[in-house]
Amino acid sequence: MLKLYDFLDSGNGYKVRLTLTQLGIPYELVEVDILTGGSRTPEFLAKNPNGRIPLLEFEDGRRLAESNAIICYLAEGTPLLPADPWLRAQVLQWMFFEQYSHEPNIATARFWVKHLQLDDLRRRMLEDKMKAGNAALGVMQRHLAGHAFFVDDRYSVADIALFAYTHVAGEAGFDLAAYPAVQTWIARVREQSGHKPITAR
Amino acid sequence: MLKLYDFLDSGNGYKVRLTLTQLGIPYELVEVDILTGGSRTPEFLAKNPNGRIPLLEFEDGRRLAESNAIICYLAEGTPLLPADPWLRAQVLQWMFFEQYSHEPNIATARFWVKHLQLDDLRRRMLEDKMKAGNAALGVMQRHLAGHAFFVDDRYSVADIALFAYTHVAGEAGFDLAAYPAVQTWIARVREQSGHKPITAR
Repeated sequence: MLKLYDFLDSGNGYKVRLTLTQLGIPYELVEVDILTGGSRTPEFLAKNPNGRIPLLEFEDGRRLAESNAIICYLAEGTPLLPADPWLRAQVLQWMFFEQYSHEPNIATARFWVKHLQLDDLRRRMLEDKMKAGNAALGVMQRHLAGHAFFVDDRYSVADIALFAYTHVAGEAGFDLAAYPAVQTWIARVREQSGHKPITAR
Repeated sequence: MLKLYDFLDSGNGYKVRLTLTQLGIPYELVEVDILTGGSRTPEFLAKNPNGRIPLLEFEDGRRLAESNAIICYLAEGTPLLPADPWLRAQVLQWMFFEQYSHEPNIATARFWVKHLQLDDLRRRMLEDKMKAGNAALGVMQRHLAGHAFFVDDRYSVADIALFAYTHVAGEAGFDLAAYPAVQTWIARVREQSGHKPITAR
């Protein structure tokens, strides 16, 4: 059976749990406590030298890191990843947007607010992250005002990737009421067959 | 003809210029001065709402953003992107590593050092970026100590993505002499047919 090394509060991990569940693929969850250094032990670094969850391990020992690479691989040949090259290009465009312009701001702000004591440096960095996170939400709002989903008006791994931290952005202090099309899309993603919440195993 | 909106000193733009050149695809370069807000004008934001270069525009008006999404799309069906799903998964894993763990540290540190006056906040953030950038270079060193290239010991878009800012990491103050396998790989990438330097049009 697949083994998923993960931390339940992680949106990056949630992307993989949600994709596996919606595709009906069974997996064993191995919880790694990233708050106490669980992803930086010699044992874990031997599995993923980059020291991050989620990490997917196959029965034959192969391992794959990076949430968006994992869900693309799992979704290959399913309705969650279009076969058409131009549609795939747009899926990847939104997934790289997520990892570069969205996650480092919204997810990191959420992690800091939830789990860290903020010193002066972090407080000033948090202001930058709120600004950049709102810019990312603005880009999403503008796109979703004219589209049901991110690519080809169909639910795909691009939606899963962007849903993971957007729907909990309020925990970092972002006001999603300012982004009504994003809110409508969040409701639409929640209606998809096999949906489950972020901390569900 | 393809139009590439780009800034010559950008490693993200260089990925696309190098891929287009190595694939023999002609393109018109449209220079955008990101130092004077050229990627945040109303005209440019109408093309890419995320306000970033590189942006590739096709003759029929289609547009694609995000350097790594662009080079995956261009490389589809060529030796630069393997067809095998597991090899593709590894290519994407390294490309998401690049955009999340490598570029925001090494490229951002380089941009700050080259183009900005650093205040106290930025100086302290730069220390964090040097530490995280060295961690990313360490992950690359560990992998390249046993491999000629990142995936399947063959040159691919994963190498192009990681080469772009690694080979200029010295401009940010990183000491590549500490990463001998990375240096050997840099030389190997430079030997590939059709290679050209970062600021070549």
